[in-house]
Amino acid sequence: MRCLWLEDRRLSARADAPVPQPAHDEALVRVLRAGICNTDLELVRGYYPFSGILGHEFVGVVESAGEWRGARVCGEINAACGACAQCRAGRNTHCDRRTVLGIVNRNGAFAEYLTLPIENLHAVPEAVPDDEAVFTEPLAAALEITEQVQVRPSDTAVVIGDGKLGLLCAQVLALTGCRVWALGRHQNKIDVLAARGIQTALVDEAPPVRADVVVECTGSAAGFDLARQFLRPRGTLVLKSTYAGLASVDLSRVVVDEITVIGSRCGPFAPALDLLARRLVDVRSLIHARYPLSQGLAAMERAQQPGVLKVILDVA
Amino acid sequence: MRCLWLEDRRLSARADAPVPQPAHDEALVRVLRAGICNTDLELVRGYYPFSGILGHEFVGVVESAGEWRGARVCGEINAACGACAQCRAGRNTHCDRRTVLGIVNRNGAFAEYLTLPIENLHAVPEAVPDDEAVFTEPLAAALEITEQVQVRPSDTAVVIGDGKLGLLCAQVLALTGCRVWALGRHQNKIDVLAARGIQTALVDEAPPVRADVVVECTGSAAGFDLARQFLRPRGTLVLKSTYAGLASVDLSRVVVDEITVIGSRCGPFAPALDLLARRLVDVRSLIHARYPLSQGLAAMERAQQPGVLKVILDVA
Repeated sequence: MRCLWLEDRRLSARADAPVPQPAHDEALVRVLRAGICNTDLELVRGYYPFSGILGHEFVGVVESAGEWRGARVCGEINAACGACAQCRAGRNTHCDRRTVLGIVNRNGAFAEYLTLPIENLHAVPEAVPDDEAVFTEPLAAALEITEQVQVRPSDTAVVIGDGKLGLLCAQVLALTGCRVWALGRHQNKIDVLAARGIQTALVDEAPPVRADVVVECTGSAAGFDLARQFLRPRGTLVLKSTYAGLASVDLSRVVVDEITVIGSRCGPFAPALDLLARRLVDVRSLIHARYPLSQGLAAMERAQQPGVLKVILDVA
Repeated sequence: MRCLWLEDRRLSARADAPVPQPAHDEALVRVLRAGICNTDLELVRGYYPFSGILGHEFVGVVESAGEWRGARVCGEINAACGACAQCRAGRNTHCDRRTVLGIVNRNGAFAEYLTLPIENLHAVPEAVPDDEAVFTEPLAAALEITEQVQVRPSDTAVVIGDGKLGLLCAQVLALTGCRVWALGRHQNKIDVLAARGIQTALVDEAPPVRADVVVECTGSAAGFDLARQFLRPRGTLVLKSTYAGLASVDLSRVVVDEITVIGSRCGPFAPALDLLARRLVDVRSLIHARYPLSQGLAAMERAQQPGVLKVILDVA
């Protein structure tokens, strides 16, 4: 089958990869669409030493036998052991022995077929078209913020970073009724939010907000200090960015201002699909380009260009 | 009056400072004892550009007229305006216009007299001798941890750093009934805790604990990464150290492990005095040396030596 293969930080388009064989608790999924995420770009840059098929945002159809056969699905990306201390404590996404689709020891979604544990699958409601279903995983990641932090309707929240994840986080926070400021560096990107009635500003022109909650989605080490400047004392700074390298941080400032910093990663799929089905989050405006899987290398190039939001791979 | 004066990172012993005049809402306090804190040492190193009389841990007697006259007191160190957004939200210790005793725009306790707002004063119970009352401020800072974070009796907590604050934090956490590991680099210091039935280890010989809560009290930039290694996914890392300079932090690891990092500074005085009066925290073992105020420079030198815990200044 065709796929995008990463090895030693080199990405190649292959047409000769074997169709994977699902284990007894897994499903074989024929991929319809996949989305390119910043994490994919960071993996190529060496953020984590992954070898294999890249990609973790997808919608597909279950091909293997059993009750799921023929279902249109998306899938949670962490495959857990169910037996370690983290799994037993209910922290499956933190399983000590987890594999992660297209990220850690598990071939991913930039391919004609993938396998995932059946327990990871979520049926996609009819109301959610393929192009939008691809956003289930990043939208779930945005929802992880409100899984972890109580955002009050009377709060002021700032989202810094107008990449794909930032635009989803801002929309999710705005659904709570809180006052959201979405800050970015690209007018065309923050305009997606302005069109939905969310307050936006270019970072350099931002008002001197001191927010209760600031979400850092810049994808860069400089984002932490920038985010902190918009936070009130005892406020909560949510970190969503993962990238290669270390950040230089004034931790004494964290102590003096008694800030809470909370790392936030994968979130709940069911409410993400629900919000998509009810059209409460606009993901369609985030699609900037579309390539067939056979042009996957060009798609990855495009996804890295400034100002470009989601690039979709048409697999089938 | 005599005092220890800091200016341009140079500390000097002065005998000619004027006795301060209390404002109408302030008390004049004759200092009996003061304690040297790591923050004092960091201020001399340039952690914050303070000029004036150093010192913020003290016990004294109110000299000025009014109902407090003659009372033996300690005092909260943040003098708040009562009118700014932080004060109105109940975050007085984060007052935008605060002065801080011996730290920010307010002369401190390494002097024969100091002034503080009357509302900052706490009467010291008879059961608490002067030497122990000096520890009210740092013990309150240790109690700020459980003001901010719910530490469960079934939790495992690790305290890293066997300085004065670390030893107080470990004792406070142990009072919750949780399983505490206190890790340090000096056998004589962690032995203070072992004598109270708290589990201790040298950092390099520590068991591979994955704690629910880790408290970073090392006072150094390297402490963050060390502390993180003892934390479980979704655990809470409490930062107590303030020091000059930036730390290099793997923030992506914070995201992937969904860690909560919380900065923790000044805490509640009343429960600190209560715990001292009930003899539930041993502070006496932390006193390593005692100098008259006239030998304050020698006292500061001594406080910087490795292995030395609290140095007390005998003022009266």
